[in-house]
Amino acid sequence: MAPSANAPAQADAKANPLDSLIAMVADDLKAVNRTIVEQMQSPVALIPQLAGHLVAAGGKRLRPVLTLATARLCGYEGAGHVLVATCVEFIHTATLLHDDVVDDSKLRRGRESANAIWGNEPSVLVGDFLFSRAFEMLVDHGDLPTMRLLSRACATLSEGEVMQLLTANDIETTRDAYLDVIRGKTAALFAAAARAGGMVAQRPEAELNALSTYGMNLGTAFQVVDDTLDYSAEQAALGKEVGDDFRDGKVTLPAILAIERGSDEERAFWQRCLGDQDIHDGDLEHAMELMRRHNALDDAQAQARAYVEEARQALEVFPDNPMRRILLDVADFSLERAF
Amino acid sequence: MAPSANAPAQADAKANPLDSLIAMVADDLKAVNRTIVEQMQSPVALIPQLAGHLVAAGGKRLRPVLTLATARLCGYEGAGHVLVATCVEFIHTATLLHDDVVDDSKLRRGRESANAIWGNEPSVLVGDFLFSRAFEMLVDHGDLPTMRLLSRACATLSEGEVMQLLTANDIETTRDAYLDVIRGKTAALFAAAARAGGMVAQRPEAELNALSTYGMNLGTAFQVVDDTLDYSAEQAALGKEVGDDFRDGKVTLPAILAIERGSDEERAFWQRCLGDQDIHDGDLEHAMELMRRHNALDDAQAQARAYVEEARQALEVFPDNPMRRILLDVADFSLERAF
Repeated sequence: MAPSANAPAQADAKANPLDSLIAMVADDLKAVNRTIVEQMQSPVALIPQLAGHLVAAGGKRLRPVLTLATARLCGYEGAGHVLVATCVEFIHTATLLHDDVVDDSKLRRGRESANAIWGNEPSVLVGDFLFSRAFEMLVDHGDLPTMRLLSRACATLSEGEVMQLLTANDIETTRDAYLDVIRGKTAALFAAAARAGGMVAQRPEAELNALSTYGMNLGTAFQVVDDTLDYSAEQAALGKEVGDDFRDGKVTLPAILAIERGSDEERAFWQRCLGDQDIHDGDLEHAMELMRRHNALDDAQAQARAYVEEARQALEVFPDNPMRRILLDVADFSLERAF
Repeated sequence: MAPSANAPAQADAKANPLDSLIAMVADDLKAVNRTIVEQMQSPVALIPQLAGHLVAAGGKRLRPVLTLATARLCGYEGAGHVLVATCVEFIHTATLLHDDVVDDSKLRRGRESANAIWGNEPSVLVGDFLFSRAFEMLVDHGDLPTMRLLSRACATLSEGEVMQLLTANDIETTRDAYLDVIRGKTAALFAAAARAGGMVAQRPEAELNALSTYGMNLGTAFQVVDDTLDYSAEQAALGKEVGDDFRDGKVTLPAILAIERGSDEERAFWQRCLGDQDIHDGDLEHAMELMRRHNALDDAQAQARAYVEEARQALEVFPDNPMRRILLDVADFSLERAF
């Protein structure tokens, strides 16, 4: 059946569920974008300038979109979710600024990173400003459980990032340690973003837990796929560089699987590249070849699929409706491409 | 009259009012120290290790002591001020960690700085953890006005730090711009720390404003004195290095006064040293000689004295009692030495 003119969301859903989700919360997202611009103002002009550089670069606003979407899924009809979604985006932006300093990244969202343009110092400080402003906004929102949720998520984020530093260059990193890292650095904020929408709608604990589970598993799948794409040549066609994790000595799931299944000689190769970061021409291609040989990328993708399944199951406590369907589709879609 | 055995606080006060103040809140401060250790725990062992390095290095805990002292000044007899004071110290510690990254400092409180030992990356992230944990604790405390106060203070702190970056190397920096910087980076947290004690005691707005004024002016005097000591040779006897601001190109009040009053030739000297950071042997001594010639250090000290006077006047709304007397003495003492 051809999509009818009055069901554009469903038509889009077949092309790209994430864009459909964004379309379904378009007005709310515009309000979030306005609030972002308002709230990043400061008499110190460099602050909105630097923060605006990152914000203007776009990104899908995936985390605030989750908050907006789950609030609507829960039948919320007010406007309080806009402030909370903006806080979520500020927290995310602050962590991106600090991550780029920590990773010494030169590119972010296809543009020069803030630290590459202005140096590390203002990136650290503007990140701090955005964290602080997020809490100021939460105080205005006035809901203690939401404040507890998001301050906890921030602490978990930094714990995940520190764990990532500690597992870097360590080819003995276990799958469990990897999972702790990505739950902390990525999935915890997805979980909090999803739960926050339900909290604005004042839903019962069982539904809030379902939203946390959805967000946590979606975020975990999202990060596993991201880590897989870092070794998949097709990614080059999408305009991102392949092999960043390899060069940074980050020990991600595809590498862990290849190392587990590799010979002693292969293990020495991984130690030299990821452990000692002594990398030469052709090493990335050899790493990708080892991953193919040991089915590491496919198995990592299968693992991501399992998380997606858990995310989907969590939403069963909600009645069937267009928003739930899109959120289910978005979970599936996380396996198909990076966003 | 010789000090009697049962009035040790007053006897100490003549030697060092700050130590007397600390003695007056000693039990509360012990509780703060216990809470610090409890609250910096994390399953990620590097976090308490790195935070503990800085915390163990000591410092006077001046900011939390202010919170403890003003709560008692306001007649508070409960224990809720301990949590708030701990938050204040966490916020301060987080900013120290980030400052040392921003300034690339190698020493802090007479020990190797955290970034010198562990690198910049965990210093940034553990700072973020402490900020987040401070807000978690404030949520447990549950008082929205205190949360608003401290989240605002955090935003102001980062604004002050960014302003400091922007005025660095700029020998045109005005006294007003300098004042904005030090109010933001230092005095705002003193003000919030002092006010927070009154808020725990649920005092009326007029008293809270008096406490803010006390803290703001004490903090301003404290920073002006600190900036003066950076050019005073006697400081070497105290075990700190002289000339850090000079070498970093920070344009502080003594430099501003010397530049204002200098010849064109002197201006060229300041431009080369502070502006271009092209510094040779003997330049620091020449800078100090210019400051003496133009009375810059004495006049900066006189300015600090004016702030101390404002701090003292603010406390007049409170009845005379031992705590008020010590807080008045502490204000005077800030002129006598760095702490």
